[in-house]
Amino acid sequence: MSNILNKINSPADVKKLSVDEMKELASEIREVIIKKVNTTGGHMAPNLGIVEATMALHYVFNSPVDKFIFDVSHQCYTHKILTGRKEGFTDESKYYNYSGYTNPKESEHDIFKVGHTSTSVSLATGVAKARDLKGETGNVIALIGDGSLSGGEAFEGLNNAAVLNSNIIILVNDNDMSIAENQGGLYKNLKELRDSKGKAECNFFKSMGFDYYYIEDGNNIEDGNNIEELIETFNKVKDINHPTVVHMTTLKGKGLPIAEQNKETFHWILPGTLDAKPSTEVVENYNTITVDYVSKKAKEDKTLVLINPATPGACGFSPEFRKELGKQYVDVAISEEHAIAYASALAKCGAKPILAVLSSFIQRTYDQFSQDLCLNNNPATVLVYWGGISNGDATHLGCFDIPMLSNIPNLVYLAPVNKEEYLAMLDWSVEQKDYSVAIRVPFGNFISTGIEDKTDYSQINKFKMEEEGKDVAIVALGSFFELGKKVKSMLKDKLNINATLINPHFITGIDKEMLEELKSNHRLVITLEDGILEGGFGEKITRFYSTSDMKVINYGANKEFTDCVPLGELYERYHLKDYLIVNDIKNCLNLVQI
Amino acid sequence: MSNILNKINSPADVKKLSVDEMKELASEIREVIIKKVNTTGGHMAPNLGIVEATMALHYVFNSPVDKFIFDVSHQCYTHKILTGRKEGFTDESKYYNYSGYTNPKESEHDIFKVGHTSTSVSLATGVAKARDLKGETGNVIALIGDGSLSGGEAFEGLNNAAVLNSNIIILVNDNDMSIAENQGGLYKNLKELRDSKGKAECNFFKSMGFDYYYIEDGNNIEDGNNIEELIETFNKVKDINHPTVVHMTTLKGKGLPIAEQNKETFHWILPGTLDAKPSTEVVENYNTITVDYVSKKAKEDKTLVLINPATPGACGFSPEFRKELGKQYVDVAISEEHAIAYASALAKCGAKPILAVLSSFIQRTYDQFSQDLCLNNNPATVLVYWGGISNGDATHLGCFDIPMLSNIPNLVYLAPVNKEEYLAMLDWSVEQKDYSVAIRVPFGNFISTGIEDKTDYSQINKFKMEEEGKDVAIVALGSFFELGKKVKSMLKDKLNINATLINPHFITGIDKEMLEELKSNHRLVITLEDGILEGGFGEKITRFYSTSDMKVINYGANKEFTDCVPLGELYERYHLKDYLIVNDIKNCLNLVQI
Repeated sequence: MSNILNKINSPADVKKLSVDEMKELASEIREVIIKKVNTTGGHMAPNLGIVEATMALHYVFNSPVDKFIFDVSHQCYTHKILTGRKEGFTDESKYYNYSGYTNPKESEHDIFKVGHTSTSVSLATGVAKARDLKGETGNVIALIGDGSLSGGEAFEGLNNAAVLNSNIIILVNDNDMSIAENQGGLYKNLKELRDSKGKAECNFFKSMGFDYYYIEDGNNIEDGNNIEELIETFNKVKDINHPTVVHMTTLKGKGLPIAEQNKETFHWILPGTLDAKPSTEVVENYNTITVDYVSKKAKEDKTLVLINPATPGACGFSPEFRKELGKQYVDVAISEEHAIAYASALAKCGAKPILAVLSSFIQRTYDQFSQDLCLNNNPATVLVYWGGISNGDATHLGCFDIPMLSNIPNLVYLAPVNKEEYLAMLDWSVEQKDYSVAIRVPFGNFISTGIEDKTDYSQINKFKMEEEGKDVAIVALGSFFELGKKVKSMLKDKLNINATLINPHFITGIDKEMLEELKSNHRLVITLEDGILEGGFGEKITRFYSTSDMKVINYGANKEFTDCVPLGELYERYHLKDYLIVNDIKNCLNLVQI
Repeated sequence: MSNILNKINSPADVKKLSVDEMKELASEIREVIIKKVNTTGGHMAPNLGIVEATMALHYVFNSPVDKFIFDVSHQCYTHKILTGRKEGFTDESKYYNYSGYTNPKESEHDIFKVGHTSTSVSLATGVAKARDLKGETGNVIALIGDGSLSGGEAFEGLNNAAVLNSNIIILVNDNDMSIAENQGGLYKNLKELRDSKGKAECNFFKSMGFDYYYIEDGNNIEDGNNIEELIETFNKVKDINHPTVVHMTTLKGKGLPIAEQNKETFHWILPGTLDAKPSTEVVENYNTITVDYVSKKAKEDKTLVLINPATPGACGFSPEFRKELGKQYVDVAISEEHAIAYASALAKCGAKPILAVLSSFIQRTYDQFSQDLCLNNNPATVLVYWGGISNGDATHLGCFDIPMLSNIPNLVYLAPVNKEEYLAMLDWSVEQKDYSVAIRVPFGNFISTGIEDKTDYSQINKFKMEEEGKDVAIVALGSFFELGKKVKSMLKDKLNINATLINPHFITGIDKEMLEELKSNHRLVITLEDGILEGGFGEKITRFYSTSDMKVINYGANKEFTDCVPLGELYERYHLKDYLIVNDIKNCLNLVQI
């Protein structure tokens, strides 16, 4: 471990440093962050951008009496390093000891577990109000990136924070980037403020009722005075008695030239990115076939428009692809609620919108799906990415979209199991005018049959009978269809059961006719879904059979927030393994293994 | 019918009028609105406020080529009157022919069916983008009230609208009111703009990138020049080639003195409000006991804080009560997302937040419930009002909160069946520190046992065995507990079955022990819930029994948007009548009626 960092075990140690030592510490912190993130993967550029500001915050303020609330909290690595968790960054054996987000279970310096955007101002306003109600003192500081400001929850928070009548400090970390480029009218004003060094008369933050301070170059080490300026400004606002915005410019990726040059790519990186040679080989996957489909379709039909709320990289929408689409690509900024309403209106007025959004972030849109889209029955297409049980952080799970979406009236939610089905569903959805449609883009293994899917998806809730058998029927949804195939095979091998295999295609309804027919020669139906069971797909089938003699077992995840639990462990826990399922079937039917 | 209105059958007829005739028409329209709304109930003050502006819009613009998108659309009555639907306001026999909101099924002049706030800018941006993609022309005008501007979706929409690079006109109808008073920093700026007649340098709309026009006195008839000014300004912005805000001040309730004086009370009124003599008798109900509880508790505990997102009237929070609570009442403006995060943070930091929100509007908060609140397990209390199957407009149904909330991990969602249970649950929730809790405030008949409820609600998912019987068990949730009692009684009378009656208390989980015990001497379990079945409470019980011989029937609503369907008709449709249920039970068990 290097010189200064060696001595830092708590915020108190930061307060002992000279400015020159802090500058040295910034370099040391960047060094360990770069090495650690390149090993484990993680948010590289956002963390490199906010090293100095985090040090200055801990130098001036007194955490945990003063409270820092990080937006998304993907930029909290320096904060973790300075608050007793540096070994998670310096000791390779402890790289996985701490999560990539703030977590109250790790430290009293973390107030909330967060991973979604645009929440810090709202949360901080509550923290400050609690302080006031309790008659306590102390500073409440919300950190928020410029990119997160477009989210409605941030705005709602600002509106209430501004009338708090007591101390709350909003530190806007303006690196002129969202994950990709910023989008929207707000960002013209942020540019005016940067260009005028905070002096422009028309000021979004002042218009919201905040006092306003501006810091240029919050992390420009070469300038030599950035830490002094940060400290000076933070000292000015410390203990301030009214709502205040500190608007600070920083350089995303600072200190790692390749990240400074490729801010979007280095927002979040896979392990080994810095060591990997750029691959020119393109392996077909669900992202590439989506891009190919949209690219071709957009040329044929100028009313097709691809919409994305600020996560183009996650969906494989490269800068080149976005440029190629031109006006037919709209990054609406972080604004999932707006995105749904916008797509609904486009569809209503005869355009062909395709909205691509991640399962975890679609959680922002329940009401918009219900009211703005499905109540109006407008034929928009929503692609849900990254849906399914995962080993992810509890803040980014993709296992809730089925219960959330599938109980909204009118929606048709589709679960393709391979390339051909996915493309057929996508094309059907884009061309039809009768339904609001969501498609759960398969996540994980890429499967192609090579045989064009000619299913007529306008036959809503028509399941596909893949293989007709008897005794046991396996209804295997979307990405768990392959598991269904394995279970069928093992049932034959182990229990000599020639099971029926069904690919339901539709998540939002059941094929009553097919399910009724199963009653004649089946005793057990099992359902497989890649998400939580409660409120999900399988329970609808269970209810269908609830007054019959048919037994049903639903397989899927428990209703729980799992946090970085390995997938294999989760599959064991939920019995999502062929041998566990076959054993359950054996027990349910009181069979003897052959 | 009066003179001018007689001649108005379409927007084309408005265009033929002189300004003087339009002034006369405004009076005539107000007259019919006042009479109609006082007869049927509805949004009185918002509609009286926007008569002139609506006429001027139809005078200047060319609907439906030019498109008006109304926010909430509760202010669309004049629009309906001018677009071929006046008989719904002038002919008492047709008062119920048209809904209180825009509806594309009624008229080509209505683009969307909407009833929730803060959507118009987002929707209009999509309408405008579709126009541009299709190479068409025409104006797109979003109407939005000042109160609705606080909602995050409106902000997200403004951010995207501002960079549209073509025609979109946002008409801000600033009557200096939300449903109650406006709250938040944004409204200081609106005041500055009003005080400076739109000339203040710091301008929220300009900071968002919009061109900006100001109209004073959009409906001040006495001034004599308001219609001219409206027409003049609308003509200026007609066919404008860039995003533009027209900021117009109006008087909410204009033309009805009692509404001008009591803007909040007259936002939405019950039938006969103008004729009714004010009653001084207070009848105890779930609103009054909530107010009494909070009032008492707030005095004892200065950390208790009641939070409401801009719907105090619906919850019975009178201006006097709000004043009495002082700093312990926070109206966070229309900002449901923020409200949840704010409550979560307050709870985290040791305050005792109680957030009151309507079932239909809680739909805005899926992600905040999941991430900001329940993932953090902070002990906030959320009161869900108006939950249940209703005869309401499709935009304001309360039958979706159970599927939405009950599948979120960690949440404890409680369903009291009477006053005593409700107060016991509320007090338990406020005092405990282990769970995020929501309580479904009973809606409808007020029931009091007079016997204090001493249940220990910390025994999570412990159902209450009300009456132990056999053969059939009735699990009757919340407001349907009374129906369960009726079914039990009728089962005895008609089928000589001594049924078991269970009050589950908990929506978010099941009492496996009690359900397991039922297997020994029961053949059928029925579940009753006041909401849609899909993803709801009953399906969880069905799944519990899915591999046993127990039969289960779930009762609740279908997954559908019903639109002003009488409650009796819905109960018939869903078999939510004792005799229908008993008949189902008879058929399921192959019994003969005695």
